[in-house]
Amino acid sequence: MTAYSDLMEYQRQTEALGQIAGRLGWDQETMMPRGAADQRAEEFAAIEGVLHARRTDARVGDWLIQAEAPDAAGAAQLRLIRRSHVRATRIPARLAQDLARLTSAAQGIWAAARKDEDVAGFLPTLAQVIALKREEAACLAGTGDAYDALLDDYEPGETAATVSAMFDAMRPRLVALRGAALASAHQPADLDAAFPADTQLRLSRDLAAAFGYDWNYGRLDLAVHPFSSGSGRDVRITTRVVERDPFNCFYSTIHEVGHATYELGIDPDYALTPLGAGVSMGVHESQSRIYENQLGRSRAFTGWLHARMQDAFGDFGVSDADGFYGTVNKLREGFIRTEADEVQYNLHVMLRFDLERALISGDLAVADLEAAWNDRFRADFGQVVPRPSAGMLQDVHWSVGLFGYFPTYTLGNLYAGCLHQALRRDVPDLDASLARGDASPATAWLREKVQRHGGLMPPRDLIAQAAGFAPHAGPVLDYLERKFGAIYRL
Amino acid sequence: MTAYSDLMEYQRQTEALGQIAGRLGWDQETMMPRGAADQRAEEFAAIEGVLHARRTDARVGDWLIQAEAPDAAGAAQLRLIRRSHVRATRIPARLAQDLARLTSAAQGIWAAARKDEDVAGFLPTLAQVIALKREEAACLAGTGDAYDALLDDYEPGETAATVSAMFDAMRPRLVALRGAALASAHQPADLDAAFPADTQLRLSRDLAAAFGYDWNYGRLDLAVHPFSSGSGRDVRITTRVVERDPFNCFYSTIHEVGHATYELGIDPDYALTPLGAGVSMGVHESQSRIYENQLGRSRAFTGWLHARMQDAFGDFGVSDADGFYGTVNKLREGFIRTEADEVQYNLHVMLRFDLERALISGDLAVADLEAAWNDRFRADFGQVVPRPSAGMLQDVHWSVGLFGYFPTYTLGNLYAGCLHQALRRDVPDLDASLARGDASPATAWLREKVQRHGGLMPPRDLIAQAAGFAPHAGPVLDYLERKFGAIYRL
Repeated sequence: MTAYSDLMEYQRQTEALGQIAGRLGWDQETMMPRGAADQRAEEFAAIEGVLHARRTDARVGDWLIQAEAPDAAGAAQLRLIRRSHVRATRIPARLAQDLARLTSAAQGIWAAARKDEDVAGFLPTLAQVIALKREEAACLAGTGDAYDALLDDYEPGETAATVSAMFDAMRPRLVALRGAALASAHQPADLDAAFPADTQLRLSRDLAAAFGYDWNYGRLDLAVHPFSSGSGRDVRITTRVVERDPFNCFYSTIHEVGHATYELGIDPDYALTPLGAGVSMGVHESQSRIYENQLGRSRAFTGWLHARMQDAFGDFGVSDADGFYGTVNKLREGFIRTEADEVQYNLHVMLRFDLERALISGDLAVADLEAAWNDRFRADFGQVVPRPSAGMLQDVHWSVGLFGYFPTYTLGNLYAGCLHQALRRDVPDLDASLARGDASPATAWLREKVQRHGGLMPPRDLIAQAAGFAPHAGPVLDYLERKFGAIYRL
Repeated sequence: MTAYSDLMEYQRQTEALGQIAGRLGWDQETMMPRGAADQRAEEFAAIEGVLHARRTDARVGDWLIQAEAPDAAGAAQLRLIRRSHVRATRIPARLAQDLARLTSAAQGIWAAARKDEDVAGFLPTLAQVIALKREEAACLAGTGDAYDALLDDYEPGETAATVSAMFDAMRPRLVALRGAALASAHQPADLDAAFPADTQLRLSRDLAAAFGYDWNYGRLDLAVHPFSSGSGRDVRITTRVVERDPFNCFYSTIHEVGHATYELGIDPDYALTPLGAGVSMGVHESQSRIYENQLGRSRAFTGWLHARMQDAFGDFGVSDADGFYGTVNKLREGFIRTEADEVQYNLHVMLRFDLERALISGDLAVADLEAAWNDRFRADFGQVVPRPSAGMLQDVHWSVGLFGYFPTYTLGNLYAGCLHQALRRDVPDLDASLARGDASPATAWLREKVQRHGGLMPPRDLIAQAAGFAPHAGPVLDYLERKFGAIYRL
């Protein structure tokens, strides 16, 4: 027991330092004066150096050999600490530094290339990033698959093969649903009004409260790209405001409330331990997506939102609640993943998943990426990409080395579909609450079934025990076909 | 040179981590959700643990033995690193932890005692704090004086004897000036209007700009007790708003701009090194006080402020600029240090200085503190302290172990007097700029003479080279007698 408690005490401080690093990131995106960027980079490097040294500390290896877990939760703690220790020790410090330096610079090069529509200006840097990520993957994978090693970092236990099997089942039905909806004669109305920023933010706070966000442990600020930040008792959210598109603000807020409510819903006994954070990116996204889409974009909840928007903004041109529900959920032709609706979003993600696997394996040369992207986009979306910023230059992810991250977005949607099916089974009168702007029965169910467990179970096991069945693509597809079939009268 | 550069590289990361700890403190006072306090305490403990381990690291001792400074600045760097290393290694980890735990708890006990006017409830805790501070002082002082060891931490090079000599010269003239002003038949008018919070904050931003605060490297937020935070390229300020007392907001802002401008004015080559921060609490206070008082409360600058306030608030009952100057500078009978004017403030500080020396030496028992405080207050201020919260329970300092800190407030005022005399000598037409709301000639002079040097010179040497004479109490006393003599027609 001494080795176990020594290790947990040591780990507790590492987790606290990790929280500090996360808070610095929040500060950078919300509060930091512009001129402080260079100094902040040095501060990040310093605390990341401390974290890396702690994770690779030889004492951790010794404790892990000697420690005996007192219970199942303790065994899970040891499993997660071992995972972090092994990962950190496998990556040479030189490689970690090279990656940090390159991806930091690459982000600026990508941003400039996107602005100038300059693919050629970005490709050499992207090639360097891929080379280092392949080197990193080789350190992590040993004799295993390189892409799987990268994916496992975000979604423990998943492989390209398991994800592909699920995605392959989804793609044809999504392509068909997309085509039918866009071709339908029954198109919902568009918004065409200005919505004052202050009022959007005030209503955002009401939405956060409706979904149970606890202001005692969080706050809402503005950010260019909304995100949530932190674990334990300090989990902050951000949103953005576009004057003519209030749904951007409202659904960004609900999405981030989903992430934050997950973290805040974890058993407080796990605070500042490896179990005290969301277990994977996919499960995290399942929480943000079920709040945003299955609940927040439901007919019942949009009915309440419609009335609130009329109270706040007066007549804004969509006067009946059924029409409003269609407007909230309307599909639009577009090239940008982050602006996509529930149906098309996953097709964007699958495109990136297939291309990034080919880039990491070497089957796709960086020089051929743009053509491959544009071909695939035409196949799934039936449109010609008009410019690189609407195509392969639109996302920051690859420039900062996030290979293996994209599939967790759609995995989250798939998990959300499973959870939503079970939630409706267990809480049959949920719509009555949602129609009153009260999502608390859903939050109570999600907290009990998913959130409170933190990192206790592997992601897929967690979803399976919550839903009562092994996760698969059926529920989210059925849900999408039913919902959009009704809206578009298909 | 290798030992020197290795040490400086190591120190650079320590400084960056120190900046992070400071930013956490800023976050706690301005942004942190209320429910995050316990978690934040653990985060602080973790990063303080990292900092302490780095400062006491055996490699630092080895490098200090081997390092050869490349120049005078390098020699000063080594001097400051050695000082920090020696200090950290002299304090046993057990004592540091006991102090941290006790002072953290004592702050809450003090706050409760102040609220309940319960001296007896606070004394046992205060006695424990003093016992630990004496233990700490003994570790630091060796055969030297205990109080001097504590004072030296905030004001390197000063001793109780040197400070006493200066204070003893000030006290009788301040007591006399106070008495004459309060007895004068010519009393300035009081403000009697409400000043909307938003407008106060907007004008505060103009005031910060007038004093040269660079928004590219800082920001302004609200805090219960205003403070500034950070070094290098990220130095943030805070202020507070009292609806019927806009001077509270305006002069808090200018005061914190003084602190921040000092940090931002340090030679950027010193960033993230020991030279890259203000050299002492006294010199820091000299910058905040000269901005707040000698410049911000001058007749020339208040003339500009008066016009701005009329623009912003309309007629607020003080219509002529000379009368407004009197109102800004008016002395009021009162018991609270932080609310005191330029004349009375130093008498409050001297009271604490004398009492805390007696507490540390053991000449004054904790049980006798209240009587000693009230006797001294009656002697200097001619009034009976009506309740403990207006007396010995008013300041947080002693509960958190800040013994040796109080005298730096008055030392700062003394230094500000010296600098102001030299500034007026070197920039004879300064009032013309101040009357236009432009303090830049003063900031330029202070930057050149004081701020840019950071920690290069010991505090007293720094002031002496800036002023052109050894610092003494004459200038600030002459300034106060001239200024308040005119206002009160003495």
